[in-house]
Amino acid sequence: MIIHNFSAGPCILPQEVFQKAAAAVLNFNDLSILEISHRSKDFVAVMEQAQALALEHLGLQDKGYKAIFLGGGASMQFLMVAYNLLENKAAYLNTGTWSDNAIEEAKAFGEVAVLGSSKKSNFNYIPKGYSIPTDVDYFHCTSNNTIFGTQIKEFPASPVPVICDMSSDIFAKVMDFTKFDLIYAGAQKNMGPAGATLIVVKEDILGKVSRHIPSMLDYKAHIAKESMFNTPPVFPIYVSMLTLDWLKNNGGVAAIEQLNNAKAALIYNEIDRNALFQGFAAVEDRSTMNATFSLKDNAHTAAFDALWKDAGISGLNGHRSVGGYRASMYNALPLESVQALVDTMKELEKKG
Amino acid sequence: MIIHNFSAGPCILPQEVFQKAAAAVLNFNDLSILEISHRSKDFVAVMEQAQALALEHLGLQDKGYKAIFLGGGASMQFLMVAYNLLENKAAYLNTGTWSDNAIEEAKAFGEVAVLGSSKKSNFNYIPKGYSIPTDVDYFHCTSNNTIFGTQIKEFPASPVPVICDMSSDIFAKVMDFTKFDLIYAGAQKNMGPAGATLIVVKEDILGKVSRHIPSMLDYKAHIAKESMFNTPPVFPIYVSMLTLDWLKNNGGVAAIEQLNNAKAALIYNEIDRNALFQGFAAVEDRSTMNATFSLKDNAHTAAFDALWKDAGISGLNGHRSVGGYRASMYNALPLESVQALVDTMKELEKKG
Repeated sequence: MIIHNFSAGPCILPQEVFQKAAAAVLNFNDLSILEISHRSKDFVAVMEQAQALALEHLGLQDKGYKAIFLGGGASMQFLMVAYNLLENKAAYLNTGTWSDNAIEEAKAFGEVAVLGSSKKSNFNYIPKGYSIPTDVDYFHCTSNNTIFGTQIKEFPASPVPVICDMSSDIFAKVMDFTKFDLIYAGAQKNMGPAGATLIVVKEDILGKVSRHIPSMLDYKAHIAKESMFNTPPVFPIYVSMLTLDWLKNNGGVAAIEQLNNAKAALIYNEIDRNALFQGFAAVEDRSTMNATFSLKDNAHTAAFDALWKDAGISGLNGHRSVGGYRASMYNALPLESVQALVDTMKELEKKG
Repeated sequence: MIIHNFSAGPCILPQEVFQKAAAAVLNFNDLSILEISHRSKDFVAVMEQAQALALEHLGLQDKGYKAIFLGGGASMQFLMVAYNLLENKAAYLNTGTWSDNAIEEAKAFGEVAVLGSSKKSNFNYIPKGYSIPTDVDYFHCTSNNTIFGTQIKEFPASPVPVICDMSSDIFAKVMDFTKFDLIYAGAQKNMGPAGATLIVVKEDILGKVSRHIPSMLDYKAHIAKESMFNTPPVFPIYVSMLTLDWLKNNGGVAAIEQLNNAKAALIYNEIDRNALFQGFAAVEDRSTMNATFSLKDNAHTAAFDALWKDAGISGLNGHRSVGGYRASMYNALPLESVQALVDTMKELEKKG
């Protein structure tokens, strides 16, 4: 049976990536990809290709940016951003659990100004109308909020470097990424499996804080060694390279954006049309990656759950802090999977 | 052609682990292991099994220890050890590049007493005869020095907690591991692929420093969430579990120790017997994991290199800081591979 994998992350990747990854575990130039040295020329080529593809997809080649892949997850970046960039004061936008955690980590390193927060309404919208002060070291935001299903559609003009956690919507749509000075993203949504994190940073913002930075937390140390300061997570980076290559061979970010918009339109139209359902996030802030919704009447829960499970849908339960349902529709999820979900919503309506 | 993989790490793992890992990339309970949620019951079971097997192989079940798997590599542990445990002063033994790096990281957090160092002789022996002072927060050592081919055979009695980087010889021999209060090891030698790090820690040594510890660097935070404080490196942990399971099914650490001793005896006997070769490390400190040696006369280099490459041997070049050759013989390397190497050494002698 085909499984429609709506998991919020780690999540679906392209089937051809699974095929190539499995083949490389068995044979990658006569060895397993799991047993080769990270300093072998074969893996150095993989790393260089992954870095180049990341910059290419963001349109950031030859613009003063470096791409590095580290282990540790995006949560480690909450810490590294503050360690490397926060001298006195930083501005943060609080749009969800991960923003909130990033703010907490930063507070140990300097003053934190929270320019806007939707915490009191359980993060169901993106705060707007704030302005970024000139006396802060940087402005930090989260572009897409996986748990709550909101997404920043317009980024503010900024007089200071902009740092963005794009873990859950990187490579999902075309933007002018030169607006950002540091972008980071855990691999396990649109890029690859869990275990690697991409950091794309404009080099000229580094080296300006006075504190000692431990070498493993120092962006400059990792850039200087081209992500080989220590043994990198070889296989997660290899699979990320395969996924970035798949994206390139399928029309790049511009083509995937069209697909993502079609998937989002399909599910949100049904949520709005079908009287049994309601959306969670403010309409203007709805994420193209994660659609959060619920049944208006819990009496339908058992029937709906049976319908989507029978249809081969998995990973649809909402995060415990929101409840209801969450359809995560990352780059590799086909339109057919969203259609299968919408069909079960229509079927419930008919039965209802 | 069979390849004899002597790579220093990432390194050879059991062939059956490669088979199972590749199969799971294609199908792990109907999905790819690369697309499942880390919070799925299937992966939670993997994590629990990996942690339990690690403690079982070390004989540390029900003795107040916790096992956690993190991303970031053993180099991150140089930092985390100091962050979590160094209040005033710590003692370190300097036996190689990684010890040296651990010492440098620790210096930012407190006073560091180096009890012994073989740095002046390019780390070709293990310093002995030191005693560990009572006024330090902990004693840190590296059990096996991959680059130099030395290994600590007897650990000193200690009045303070003992922290040991066992990255390159964990699960290689039976010891009384209750002598240690914190053991860490990058996966990519005897445990799994690159991208995961095992930490086994006696809980009662934690929580005693006064500094703020960022949550991602806080052992207590990771223990409290059972290695799920953030998204863990799912696939590297899965493959580590498979490797630990393979070890159990093949007689455990006691059986692998016999094999490791046989492999080490085979290569070192040949190094000592064959007049064309010489060992690098002091005889009494020779590592069972990494045998470092060289040709006495560089005129034989081209002939010897051709011989071992023709025999399907890979990964034999020594680290640039030592030169010569390094035969890394981790748990999964069969005796036949060492025999193949020894055969080329004998063949060179005949030709010589």
